[in-house]
Amino acid sequence: MAVYTTIADAELRAFMAEYQLGEPQGLEGIREGVENSNYFLKMPAGRYILTIYEKRVDPADLPFFLGLMEHLARHGLPCPLPVAGRDGEALRRLGGKPAAIVTFLDGHSASRLTVARCAALGEALATLHLAAEGFAPKRPNALSLAGWHRLFDGCAGKADSVAPGLEAEIAAELSALDFAWPCDLPSGVIHADLFPDNVFFDGDRVSGLIDFYFACNDLLAYDVAICINAWCFEADHSFNITKARALLRGYGRVRPMGAAEIAALPLLCRGSALRFLMTRLYDWLHRVEGALVKPKDPMEYLRKLRFHRHVAGPESYGLG
Amino acid sequence: MAVYTTIADAELRAFMAEYQLGEPQGLEGIREGVENSNYFLKMPAGRYILTIYEKRVDPADLPFFLGLMEHLARHGLPCPLPVAGRDGEALRRLGGKPAAIVTFLDGHSASRLTVARCAALGEALATLHLAAEGFAPKRPNALSLAGWHRLFDGCAGKADSVAPGLEAEIAAELSALDFAWPCDLPSGVIHADLFPDNVFFDGDRVSGLIDFYFACNDLLAYDVAICINAWCFEADHSFNITKARALLRGYGRVRPMGAAEIAALPLLCRGSALRFLMTRLYDWLHRVEGALVKPKDPMEYLRKLRFHRHVAGPESYGLG
Repeated sequence: MAVYTTIADAELRAFMAEYQLGEPQGLEGIREGVENSNYFLKMPAGRYILTIYEKRVDPADLPFFLGLMEHLARHGLPCPLPVAGRDGEALRRLGGKPAAIVTFLDGHSASRLTVARCAALGEALATLHLAAEGFAPKRPNALSLAGWHRLFDGCAGKADSVAPGLEAEIAAELSALDFAWPCDLPSGVIHADLFPDNVFFDGDRVSGLIDFYFACNDLLAYDVAICINAWCFEADHSFNITKARALLRGYGRVRPMGAAEIAALPLLCRGSALRFLMTRLYDWLHRVEGALVKPKDPMEYLRKLRFHRHVAGPESYGLG
Repeated sequence: MAVYTTIADAELRAFMAEYQLGEPQGLEGIREGVENSNYFLKMPAGRYILTIYEKRVDPADLPFFLGLMEHLARHGLPCPLPVAGRDGEALRRLGGKPAAIVTFLDGHSASRLTVARCAALGEALATLHLAAEGFAPKRPNALSLAGWHRLFDGCAGKADSVAPGLEAEIAAELSALDFAWPCDLPSGVIHADLFPDNVFFDGDRVSGLIDFYFACNDLLAYDVAICINAWCFEADHSFNITKARALLRGYGRVRPMGAAEIAALPLLCRGSALRFLMTRLYDWLHRVEGALVKPKDPMEYLRKLRFHRHVAGPESYGLG
């Protein structure tokens, strides 16, 4: 989206007076991001990101997200640190909406997802999982099996307008996953949306992880499956097993996966593909004419889903 | 110094197992710094600074320093964030000595102290003073008036070996400051050592403040005086009033100084010059033959002290 909320100068000054950072020197809307209004904020001592939480984010979840970022930063993960106001609170209100400032991370997301970067991403993801240990608050994953069913119900009778037979294919997939979805794998806090635009690199080294607004408690290996889908397919839809191997080995160097997690990978990749297929399909079918955001193509994730449904086993991801 | 403490591979691995960052990938000693042993530490998710506190630092002060850095970072100051181990504690032990890991800040100290950078430094110093408000722990300044007297006692009968008449000049200065030193100016946490090598720049913008191991509670304007001495004299010992004006205006944009603080500036600059003269003189007279560290020239700060003793008033620093 573009920036939704407009901030008046006087309003910004009043808001910044709640912090201990002096007077604002500049504010600039950021085009990226679809959930919230984000701004570059320039203060005398540096740059920050100001976020106003729009209606797609449940305000009740914000203490989880901000608390998690602070926990991860304190335990050494390179991620934005929420900035506290004079009263010690990071979650505040601006223009009647929840708002927060986080530190600005230098760096850029990668334009080329090389094998070396996939390896570094795997290491960073595993570090995130380790660093989140000991974070007590819980947030169930609203976009797991039950959520996929809800999204499917919201698309009832319309999926075939996107691709003939899609409705039946999704229904069959949901049944298969209902039956086989693992529940006894190691769980913890997952990022759940670690796409390339949420990872900053300095050369081949990860310099920052951002956007924790889908983070939740779920199976750790499911987060790995999300990354396999987001990082290891080429633009021509082919699966790059070399990248997957690098990602999995990088992950395993920091947090070795157990045999049950590895065995479940094809299923977890199917689930992760279905999750993004369902949200994209839902957004596609419910798009508003003339809206600024172009919905993402659901078919990309249907192709990925089909790939994972037909793999021979975990070895198809380069393991073993 | 060079790095004092040598860390064995197995020892480092055991130490890093107390954190949630995976296995260490590299450790490299840092030559700069005279108080502690510092290392670049490479972990899968990024780079960190590992510090082992040597005997010049009082272990009882470490919770103040680390707590302050965390407080400042949480309130938005660009400074290293202490990294907590699994148990939530940042202050740990390595090789029988206190040790801590902090986040690595990108950036470099400035090779040229331009007017624009002096202005940015002033803003950053004032932001530090604001951001420290609400930090409850206290640490008295061991290097204020009483400390200067102690250092002087430790140099008794030897100062004139550095410069004829120096002993009498210091004695007279100490008497003058004993009599006139202000005690009713605004106080708070000061950095107390914000020399150019402790400030990172990205262009003319301050990107980080480091080395909080002299931080303490004292007069805020005294910290400004330390910076005037450290930033506004040229290599030929001349005073650059344009830089001082920029520094003071930058500071005032974030935290306006009161009339009493401004009036006290010449005195505070004399005190700050005497502080560094005394520590340098002490180190000079107590240097160990063959030591790796070359002691800094005390005469540089004697010259600065004499400059401030003869200024007409605060307007000599570019104010008004």
